[in-house]
Amino acid sequence: MSSHLLSVDSLSRDHVDHLLRVASRMEPIAQRRKVTRVLEGAVLGNLFFEASTRTRVSFHAAFCRLGGSVCDTTGFTFSSMAKGESLYDTSRVMSGYCDAIVMRHPDQGSVAEFAQATNVPVINGGDGPGEHPSQALLDLYTIDKEFTRLGKTLAGAHLLLTGDLKYGRTVHSLIKLLSLYAPMRITLVSPPGLEMPSHLVDLVASRGHRVELRESLASDFSDLDVIYTTRIQKERFTEEMMESFSGVSQDFTIDRAFLDQRCNDTTIVMHPLPRDSRPGANDLNVDLNGDPRLAIFRQTDNGIPVRMAIFATLLEVEDQIEKDLRDVRWFVPRKLGVDDREF
Amino acid sequence: MSSHLLSVDSLSRDHVDHLLRVASRMEPIAQRRKVTRVLEGAVLGNLFFEASTRTRVSFHAAFCRLGGSVCDTTGFTFSSMAKGESLYDTSRVMSGYCDAIVMRHPDQGSVAEFAQATNVPVINGGDGPGEHPSQALLDLYTIDKEFTRLGKTLAGAHLLLTGDLKYGRTVHSLIKLLSLYAPMRITLVSPPGLEMPSHLVDLVASRGHRVELRESLASDFSDLDVIYTTRIQKERFTEEMMESFSGVSQDFTIDRAFLDQRCNDTTIVMHPLPRDSRPGANDLNVDLNGDPRLAIFRQTDNGIPVRMAIFATLLEVEDQIEKDLRDVRWFVPRKLGVDDREF
Amino acid sequence: MSSHLLSVDSLSRDHVDHLLRVASRMEPIAQRRKVTRVLEGAVLGNLFFEASTRTRVSFHAAFCRLGGSVCDTTGFTFSSMAKGESLYDTSRVMSGYCDAIVMRHPDQGSVAEFAQATNVPVINGGDGPGEHPSQALLDLYTIDKEFTRLGKTLAGAHLLLTGDLKYGRTVHSLIKLLSLYAPMRITLVSPPGLEMPSHLVDLVASRGHRVELRESLASDFSDLDVIYTTRIQKERFTEEMMESFSGVSQDFTIDRAFLDQRCNDTTIVMHPLPRDSRPGANDLNVDLNGDPRLAIFRQTDNGIPVRMAIFATLLEVEDQIEKDLRDVRWFVPRKLGVDDREF
Repeated sequence: MSSHLLSVDSLSRDHVDHLLRVASRMEPIAQRRKVTRVLEGAVLGNLFFEASTRTRVSFHAAFCRLGGSVCDTTGFTFSSMAKGESLYDTSRVMSGYCDAIVMRHPDQGSVAEFAQATNVPVINGGDGPGEHPSQALLDLYTIDKEFTRLGKTLAGAHLLLTGDLKYGRTVHSLIKLLSLYAPMRITLVSPPGLEMPSHLVDLVASRGHRVELRESLASDFSDLDVIYTTRIQKERFTEEMMESFSGVSQDFTIDRAFLDQRCNDTTIVMHPLPRDSRPGANDLNVDLNGDPRLAIFRQTDNGIPVRMAIFATLLEVEDQIEKDLRDVRWFVPRKLGVDDREF
Repeated sequence: MSSHLLSVDSLSRDHVDHLLRVASRMEPIAQRRKVTRVLEGAVLGNLFFEASTRTRVSFHAAFCRLGGSVCDTTGFTFSSMAKGESLYDTSRVMSGYCDAIVMRHPDQGSVAEFAQATNVPVINGGDGPGEHPSQALLDLYTIDKEFTRLGKTLAGAHLLLTGDLKYGRTVHSLIKLLSLYAPMRITLVSPPGLEMPSHLVDLVASRGHRVELRESLASDFSDLDVIYTTRIQKERFTEEMMESFSGVSQDFTIDRAFLDQRCNDTTIVMHPLPRDSRPGANDLNVDLNGDPRLAIFRQTDNGIPVRMAIFATLLEVEDQIEKDLRDVRWFVPRKLGVDDREF
Repeated sequence: MSSHLLSVDSLSRDHVDHLLRVASRMEPIAQRRKVTRVLEGAVLGNLFFEASTRTRVSFHAAFCRLGGSVCDTTGFTFSSMAKGESLYDTSRVMSGYCDAIVMRHPDQGSVAEFAQATNVPVINGGDGPGEHPSQALLDLYTIDKEFTRLGKTLAGAHLLLTGDLKYGRTVHSLIKLLSLYAPMRITLVSPPGLEMPSHLVDLVASRGHRVELRESLASDFSDLDVIYTTRIQKERFTEEMMESFSGVSQDFTIDRAFLDQRCNDTTIVMHPLPRDSRPGANDLNVDLNGDPRLAIFRQTDNGIPVRMAIFATLLEVEDQIEKDLRDVRWFVPRKLGVDDREF
């Protein structure tokens, strides 16, 4: 693995496999049944130049679980950058204070530029329309974990990606990671004008997967294993799209009726979150809350072991953790809520 | 104890007794003469959707003293909530990242709503005009601790609650807790229009306490044990109240003259803080600074052991702590300032 | 050492020597080759009422390296201060929650006022035009460390201070610290109107140093050991100064040509940072990036051991640390970047 995690493009199949394996070994610590001090004395610089509370807290918690300390920075800019400091200087200074850096920034490419000047690992926590590699990794980890539980395998699986496939960076990164694995069947359904970019369709097809494009969800999905849905943001629409969309909006909404009538009992539903729960939001319907097929909260939970694995791997301590594990005497199992139910 | 701490209403006498006993056992750790790692690896989500630096820092420090890590969030909203995410989703996601959550929010009831979706303990750090149970508990703990030191008991004690008794949520919660204990004498003094709500007066009276309402402080308080005073906020006043109030404002101000002339040598003075020290602020007078009867800073200091006890109890580790205590070789006693003097 | 660090004026030669020695012993921990838990259970209140990301992160990381926890506060004011709370009350309350406080505030003298009411050590992290003592200490530590490496000594050294010597508080504090040491030669070069205040020139001269004032950099510096340069902020200029300055601006810019033509191979370049890298910024030129004589990033790196030494000394644990040191099995040396090269 390279010394940074800036994009899923830098990840080989071996890298991804290794990360997923390490993430799996992190589960007892993520659930606080075991504790480790492997990152004792280490400091994470958690730099969020764009607000993203959940991602910030997730990285923060993951680093703490490994025994490290975290210094958060939130806001639109470094105070020193406002005084004309270059990203180069900021980056080099911060890397003298921290052992690893997570950075989220609204400008595509800025995290990579920042990473060039540091001598500590940098993780891209999202750079605007660019990349958000830890999200793609936790998505893949979730599919793998749910499949293992259900006795399924990636090879031959049928996945549906739906919603806004044009602007949703998470589906772009996820499909790249999926393409590294055994041939599967990937169905893409999006409103006209929000289709998956053709270079990504071509990439996946070129690697032996069966890719199918459909214009509507009104067909048979009885063999479906995974639905990955994203919000359709009306503000993305042109006027022309608005007209054609108004009549078909419900066609792209995943709800309980869709699962009950067109899918099967083990079709899981994923979503990168947040989802818009306001009326008329064209997003994953809340009527699936409490349904064991709704995997969205198990998915966010997986952010902790996956981000722990990213830190452990970049800091090259993944093999030290096992030697440093201890039981906690005081472990209290979390009460499971209605949306934590598995099948 | 329930799995959350949302309101003092959920607390029985046994719960409160237990919390106070645990708080007392936390003192050596709160003062950093002992250390524990009982919450090692645990993460607190400290969510302040309304600014309250002191309360945030107090919860933060209490969790750290138990060996845990804290991730603060400050600001008016979650970034994801601005995108239409429901409190349900936010809550469920956060509870996958953290082992406990403290939440302060300007809207009454919002913390309880948040708590319904989590599977980790939630502590109400103040929900607007609603509840702030940890404040009431530290107030009661302070009275109990001061009384123990002075050889007094709650039974038969005389307490004066004064200031704005209508809008001050801290006096409401405190009087509920006091009502659980042995009969005492409670005198209420407030400007007309800012009286204690009658349902609370009735509650306390129905539990066998002697409640007396007075319109002014100009009487004999020579047997008084505790003054609990709160700021009178003029912005709460109607025009009519303003007129009647202008002539009597000094009647509701606690100062050194009042203590010297009408109270006794062991009458302690409490206040929920912050107090308004600006001239003409109708708040606890600064001329008591340095007087050992002024207990307001001993009171805020008690926030640490009380909040430690809340965490320990909700996370069910209160009995593990004793087994995990260690001395610190490097303890340096704090220098006592002028306002830390006891009698 | 006093119980606070508010100003370099309170530091004797012995204090400074002790701090530098302790800082040197902190290096293995600062570089994470060793870990300590000497401040386990301790909480730092890191209060930044003025934005300064780098200083905040530096103090934060230093305290964590010693095993402590940090609670950051950022923003222009305490929420309670907005309600009329005095600095006295705020200070006393905070000192009940924390074991040490770092405070940065835009108003000169406010940190000292804050410190008067606390019973825990307070470190001035910069009070507007006032003091920033930890910066001066890390500057001196950097000179000492670079000299040791190069086989040089402070006695007889030749230092150039240049740029804005009137408003730059860092050069004022540094020159005070330097004046405590063996006689050296200090050359001051600044644009007219931005000269070093005469009382500081007199102070240094009175302690036996050779001080020379020049109006331009266009002379021989072949025996120079250190350049300490600061940004010239045009917004400081009067109209008259602007006119006279426009013709000479490049005269005060330190760049590679100046070092190559007028200095020598071991002249190191320091700067308090941030530097303004925008075109025409009258600041240290980026063409020195990658030159081993550019010590600015080694200088910021030194902020960690120096701030660790400040905490250790104020909390009186500097002799406990050695007894508590442990190796880390998992240490991964940082990759050195181009600007970390020493000679």
